[in-house]
Amino acid sequence: MLFQVTPVTFNGKEVIILDQTKLPTEEVYLKIDNLEDLWEAIVQLRVRGAPAIGIAAGFGAALGANQIEAVDYTDFSEQFFKVTSYLATSRPTAVNLFWALNRMEKLVKENQSASVSDLKALIEKEAHDILQDDIKICKQLGENGLTLFEDGMTILTHCNAGVLATSEYGTALSPIYLGQERGIHLKVYADETRPLLQGSRLTSWELSKAGIDVTLITDNMAAMVMGQGKIDAVIVGCDRVAANGDVANKIGTYGVAILAKEHNIPFYVSCPTSTIDVETATGAEIPIEERGAEEIICGFGNQTAPSKVKTYNPAFDVTPNHLITAIITEKGVLKGNYQEEIAKLF
Amino acid sequence: MLFQVTPVTFNGKEVIILDQTKLPTEEVYLKIDNLEDLWEAIVQLRVRGAPAIGIAAGFGAALGANQIEAVDYTDFSEQFFKVTSYLATSRPTAVNLFWALNRMEKLVKENQSASVSDLKALIEKEAHDILQDDIKICKQLGENGLTLFEDGMTILTHCNAGVLATSEYGTALSPIYLGQERGIHLKVYADETRPLLQGSRLTSWELSKAGIDVTLITDNMAAMVMGQGKIDAVIVGCDRVAANGDVANKIGTYGVAILAKEHNIPFYVSCPTSTIDVETATGAEIPIEERGAEEIICGFGNQTAPSKVKTYNPAFDVTPNHLITAIITEKGVLKGNYQEEIAKLF
Repeated sequence: MLFQVTPVTFNGKEVIILDQTKLPTEEVYLKIDNLEDLWEAIVQLRVRGAPAIGIAAGFGAALGANQIEAVDYTDFSEQFFKVTSYLATSRPTAVNLFWALNRMEKLVKENQSASVSDLKALIEKEAHDILQDDIKICKQLGENGLTLFEDGMTILTHCNAGVLATSEYGTALSPIYLGQERGIHLKVYADETRPLLQGSRLTSWELSKAGIDVTLITDNMAAMVMGQGKIDAVIVGCDRVAANGDVANKIGTYGVAILAKEHNIPFYVSCPTSTIDVETATGAEIPIEERGAEEIICGFGNQTAPSKVKTYNPAFDVTPNHLITAIITEKGVLKGNYQEEIAKLF
Repeated sequence: MLFQVTPVTFNGKEVIILDQTKLPTEEVYLKIDNLEDLWEAIVQLRVRGAPAIGIAAGFGAALGANQIEAVDYTDFSEQFFKVTSYLATSRPTAVNLFWALNRMEKLVKENQSASVSDLKALIEKEAHDILQDDIKICKQLGENGLTLFEDGMTILTHCNAGVLATSEYGTALSPIYLGQERGIHLKVYADETRPLLQGSRLTSWELSKAGIDVTLITDNMAAMVMGQGKIDAVIVGCDRVAANGDVANKIGTYGVAILAKEHNIPFYVSCPTSTIDVETATGAEIPIEERGAEEIICGFGNQTAPSKVKTYNPAFDVTPNHLITAIITEKGVLKGNYQEEIAKLF
């Protein structure tokens, strides 16, 4: 990429994490040399975004492995599975966390004849492979996404599905960064994304840092900027895609999709195929996390609503497939009958 | 009303203002005994909402009049017009401010033979009349609005068009309060209304205080609660209605209207006929105030976006007439061809 922000890396002895809770005012990299601090960093959302959590878990497993003192496979594997079990408790709803840790455990189980030092090397390589695989997939999302955009277009996005949520490029933001590398300049409007403000804290930060032309708006301004003809397309990431193409993503996505339809603006979702869950038939089956009232009542450092007022704080919503113009994956752009298109992929 | 919150009153010597900048955490009434402090209260939005500003200006004029020491009409009127001219500089875009002050000046000009003490009494009575007129109009908005609602319905509202913006009852919230008096219980979802959070700071405060069942959500949750079937109708106030029924109101209103249409939910605007501006042909002619970046970047105490990020911060948007199910006025409920319905009223 043209600019360098690295949410998670590993130097063999330390997992280095950009502390996202300090953004946008401070760019602080934490050098983490013990599992407890890594666990805390995941719990406290210092690293967040499904792919980035998977990468952090992989490096965490490598960090733990490198610190094991063992003489043989049995001794090593016993201690290593304690490492992975411990890391798995950090964020129990994060699918990528388990996916990465399972990949590590599988590797160890498949190499029972390896020496302890070889096992450590294999694990470290596997963790770096997870990172490299994510970069490849994100870049391919950009390639496929760019087929839908032209130089000079303005794109609206919601929440953060950028570099900070992944390795490089991001998912939703990948066509924008890849476009920049190739002289295809896309402008961005970023919804601030209440209640946790990922749009203002993270998306507007990383896009500004990359030199992309980004304009920050509050969520309720999206309709007006669309009505003014300022938006050519919407692109968002997602948390889970059902077998019929319904998409669960950050709260507010559904509303943006309706506004896009009203203004005849294409609405794109960009995600790796690992986000598609063919076991979930439709969006109605996706459980929606409800979060605490304090995010709404004391969102910005000061109390801005009566302390005992009733609130409703769903973290996600579901956008039905008929509002989605296309789903961009690393294996191609899905359009039309999502049920069939998704079935073909799996 | 069943509960008592009084944004502005006058006891002959002091204008008493509920300081809305202290809400929702403190309920502080300011006893203002000089014009400079009243001017400051209007400038600092301690009192806000078009009708409430008009009432405050009327009482300010009465406060100023009562403090004048004069022996005859010429002496008195000269000093009084200085009072009104001074108050007029507090918020130059507030139409109701000028309307109230003009009403006071006209009264003085029409009573050149009155004694100074009679003039003071007339002015004080006129100021109280402005308040009483507003209460009557707001209550009638409630009467007319209630013809559209049934016991048990849930209403979504945006921004604050309640008691705090008026005298009693409010405009958009009047059917809810009047319903409460009559045993017709309406529940409310309140959008927090970024960037200035009038929904969380003011609407959720006044409705909670009145014992109304109110649930506070962020603006981007409106689509989801509509999709869940939780909302039976939307009602909002407005800043200006054009001759064709297009409505300018707080930013975000246009988006809510689109979401209501998508979910087949009626979308109502409630406003006194004084808000209808027949000189403005359509919403396209209504100038939209743009406000500073700091409201988006440093919402409420903490910086939540990069300090130099580009922002767009329109304070209002325009909802086209075709998205509006009815406009509730004190003279009746307008539906269908707004151009004709409005022309009939004037």
